[in-house]
Amino acid sequence: MTTDAALSPDDFVARLREEGDKRYHDRHPFHLRMHEGSLTREQIQAWVLNRYYYQTRIPIKDAIILSKSDDPTFRRMWMQRIVDHDGKAEGEGGLAQWQRLAEGVGLDVDEVKSLRRVLPGVRFACDAYVTLVREQPLVEAVASSLTEFFSPDIMTRRIAAWETHYPWVRAETLAYFRNRVTRARDDSRQAIDYVLAHATARDQQERCIEALITKCQILWALLDAVSNAAAHPRGER
Amino acid sequence: MTTDAALSPDDFVARLREEGDKRYHDRHPFHLRMHEGSLTREQIQAWVLNRYYYQTRIPIKDAIILSKSDDPTFRRMWMQRIVDHDGKAEGEGGLAQWQRLAEGVGLDVDEVKSLRRVLPGVRFACDAYVTLVREQPLVEAVASSLTEFFSPDIMTRRIAAWETHYPWVRAETLAYFRNRVTRARDDSRQAIDYVLAHATARDQQERCIEALITKCQILWALLDAVSNAAAHPRGER
Repeated sequence: MTTDAALSPDDFVARLREEGDKRYHDRHPFHLRMHEGSLTREQIQAWVLNRYYYQTRIPIKDAIILSKSDDPTFRRMWMQRIVDHDGKAEGEGGLAQWQRLAEGVGLDVDEVKSLRRVLPGVRFACDAYVTLVREQPLVEAVASSLTEFFSPDIMTRRIAAWETHYPWVRAETLAYFRNRVTRARDDSRQAIDYVLAHATARDQQERCIEALITKCQILWALLDAVSNAAAHPRGER
Repeated sequence: MTTDAALSPDDFVARLREEGDKRYHDRHPFHLRMHEGSLTREQIQAWVLNRYYYQTRIPIKDAIILSKSDDPTFRRMWMQRIVDHDGKAEGEGGLAQWQRLAEGVGLDVDEVKSLRRVLPGVRFACDAYVTLVREQPLVEAVASSLTEFFSPDIMTRRIAAWETHYPWVRAETLAYFRNRVTRARDDSRQAIDYVLAHATARDQQERCIEALITKCQILWALLDAVSNAAAHPRGER
């Protein structure tokens, strides 16, 4: 516990952006290769299949965040995230869009949905996200979502990169990435407003920065697992 | 763990109804007096103020239930309960309606919302509900909501009783009770369908019955606390 003076809102945001920026998974070698166009079809498929597990954890962690708030106004705002992923009806929402992406890269959607082939390292990392959100105070759980600061950029670059380098992926199946550009911008604005209002002591601010760092490590570990499995296919391990 | 044969769906529903019915809080002496019209204004106020704490726990326990499900279809259905209590906008939904009820019985709404005067025994009971939902499997958490089987009846009787016996409560502030008649009917139908589909082994069925019994004990303990405090005002204890 530090007795240092609290950071000003501007300095706090700058620290969050700086610590997040240098650890965000767009710098991961596997991710660099994805956007350079040097992944094979199998590697793209492995990423889509494994990342789906992450996608399935999002509404779960958002429901935990909901359950930690006493404030109907906050809950009304945050609930939109669950609606964004689950949709308002069958076939709508981010999870359904990711399933169409899985189809678009040539995967068997039922196998993807079964989560059978998700790599252990991917499970551990994504489950660690749910655990972080469950065990830490609400403001830190919210802060861990601030990777969305960087998400509109990565999505915009991803759409261009995939259209250029992986023309075998049907363009209309990239809808998930397209929709995230605007939503991530809104979501990160809501989250940063909440964090600025509720982490006002220095040690709370530091714990929020830590939560964001942990979240970056989670996204990084997911890519480590996918990348290692691609380099050393089953049987070799 | 029992090795007895699973109950048929009809027998399982009958057991749930029977065990719930004989323990439901409409049989509590304080509740009987409420509907007979023999509570004082202060007792009605104490009930409204304390029961508000229970109301505030409902969206929290429903968000925990959401977070326990992997199924977007289930989550879409269950999320409606949170919307019912939080509303789609400020001033809407069950919590806001309960605040108007608090106003209608002459309470200071800000004090009610502050939860400052909630009795310890009421907190313990309501928090036990949140804990049950957090710690037990999803199907048992859902089963604990089946007190809503009995809720349409109690609400219908309550509206009539209050209009007759407590004419000093403005009738339009009874909206919460009115809205619950239909919603509780829909909610309990959804919950029983889920429980019948997912508790198919006998010991799961028995644990669901236990969860419903515990929930009845929680509602009962809430009334015990309110009733005892009314009989022995502060200072005497």
